Amino acid sequence: MHELVTNVFVKHFDSGLPLTDSAVLEGRDALIATTTDSYVVDPLFFPGGNIGKLAICGTVNDLAVSGAVPVFINAAFIIEDGLPFKELEKIVESMAEEAAKAGVKIVAGDTKVVGKGKCDKLFITTSGIGFLEKDLEHISTGRNIETGDTIIINGSVGDHSLAVLGARKEFSFNTPVISDCASLNHLIGKVLSKKIRVKFMRDLTRGGLAAVLNELAEMTGKGIIIDEGSVPVNEPVRGLCEMLGFDPLYLANEGKLIMVLEKDSEGKALGIMKQDDLGRESSVIGRITDINNLVTLNTRAGGRRIIYMPSGMQLPRIC
Amino acid sequence: MHELVTNVFVKHFDSGLPLTDSAVLEGRDALIATTTDSYVVDPLFFPGGNIGKLAICGTVNDLAVSGAVPVFINAAFIIEDGLPFKELEKIVESMAEEAAKAGVKIVAGDTKVVGKGKCDKLFITTSGIGFLEKDLEHISTGRNIETGDTIIINGSVGDHSLAVLGARKEFSFNTPVISDCASLNHLIGKVLSKKIRVKFMRDLTRGGLAAVLNELAEMTGKGIIIDEGSVPVNEPVRGLCEMLGFDPLYLANEGKLIMVLEKDSEGKALGIMKQDDLGRESSVIGRITDINNLVTLNTRAGGRRIIYMPSGMQLPRIC
Repeated sequence: MHELVTNVFVKHFDSGLPLTDSAVLEGRDALIATTTDSYVVDPLFFPGGNIGKLAICGTVNDLAVSGAVPVFINAAFIIEDGLPFKELEKIVESMAEEAAKAGVKIVAGDTKVVGKGKCDKLFITTSGIGFLEKDLEHISTGRNIETGDTIIINGSVGDHSLAVLGARKEFSFNTPVISDCASLNHLIGKVLSKKIRVKFMRDLTRGGLAAVLNELAEMTGKGIIIDEGSVPVNEPVRGLCEMLGFDPLYLANEGKLIMVLEKDSEGKALGIMKQDDLGRESSVIGRITDINNLVTLNTRAGGRRIIYMPSGMQLPRIC
Repeated sequence: MHELVTNVFVKHFDSGLPLTDSAVLEGRDALIATTTDSYVVDPLFFPGGNIGKLAICGTVNDLAVSGAVPVFINAAFIIEDGLPFKELEKIVESMAEEAAKAGVKIVAGDTKVVGKGKCDKLFITTSGIGFLEKDLEHISTGRNIETGDTIIINGSVGDHSLAVLGARKEFSFNTPVISDCASLNHLIGKVLSKKIRVKFMRDLTRGGLAAVLNELAEMTGKGIIIDEGSVPVNEPVRGLCEMLGFDPLYLANEGKLIMVLEKDSEGKALGIMKQDDLGRESSVIGRITDINNLVTLNTRAGGRRIIYMPSGMQLPRIC
């Protein structure tokens, strides 16, 4: 098994090397951004992606939304004995493909095989290294955010969660929903390269838009107001949410982010984003207010409600 | 569960932060070394350590033997629902302790909880970042190695593997053996700081001394000759190996390394290493020869045998 696994990595990973114990990289005159995430998504394959693609996109996005340029990825595999080799190979292929697309190199890695029943088919943990220009360091903390700043989203919410749920055998619905799983670094790079002063970015993963907005309000001590009608939600997602009792604002995405920037830059940023495949449906969804730590929603029906931090059980193993 | 987990991390990790999505670090004018490993050791606790301590030591050592100074660690946890909280806390405490001892900061992290029976209690994946001076870059490839160079080990082999095996319920032996699990970066730092020209280092993990020697022979195209009598093996390990049919040269260690250096530096290096707690039993175990790719052992009995690359099944879940 171990030899087979090693061969798959040698064959597919663009560094052309087996996954080595440690890799040596050229430094740059910049800050270093780093991140890690374990992926335990169930099932391994879902419409629009698989655990491998997800592991690359997730780590690329975590780095990119901090303002960094993602450059290197490490990948560690925990494999259940008996995982069909074809599945592993497909997953590794997707990782190599997505890494190439995102322009990152998979440089170091590890594999552990555990007995049957000791893990659920496959878990992948990726970590990433990116370089962050010093004048973008404020992005991850949002410390330059001011009242009146605009909040932009790059597209519809909820797709990833429902694509994964729909792929589970225990669910009785068939969904046409496709995960939005994608690497956002090129989209972000386009905006940053046009000298738009982005004040904050975050990808909308666990806890969805609701969690990110609440974290942002807490970090900055500011308030946020969102217009429900301006948050893109695809029709099948909206329907499934109504049926299943989910709020799309709370569902995890894997290719969505928000950006906060000055009102004046809003048009220019939208223009750039809409020219990218991953930003076609970008829209302004709200703005920063003075009301301390409060995230409110202007509902479609004309009312107003508070968006609370997601609490209690979230959908398990969505990523 | 998730909140409890987060609180444990906030309480114990020295960055004083919860495990964040991504961390920003000061760069340096040096190369960057990076590494990752998943830890799936069974059981979680064993004499001399636990999965948490192991995850820190392993990543610190992978960086340190490449010649780098380990600086930052990311840690990702996959937790089986129902893992006793006290156990998790003990493990996280050990990680914080070992990180402090090694002088590394745990900067970013992640936790995923999976259902009962979907993982075996706890898996930890650590990744690390270190800085490598350009004039030490040759260490990881061993490209300066020449015939006649000396091979030093920092102590006895086999302890970790047998400590872990002995802690398993299915084994009927009770062992006084304690894992050698330790961070070697300070020991290595002392040798490098005295301007000893180290030509190669590697920690002796999966596959043990035998695997590392064979890799080294293959990388350099050189041969290696080892004197069996000079390889330290603790008495209980020797006894258990005879009983169980293991060869200590093939057993995994978690606080052992070999160093290759010029014969002339041998005495000075040994002197420095023996003054460190992790190097008291350091000894010269062999030398580099001209015989292509061949690792041979002068046995205690006065014979000579080839040490082959470990093949087939290795002891599972030792790290």
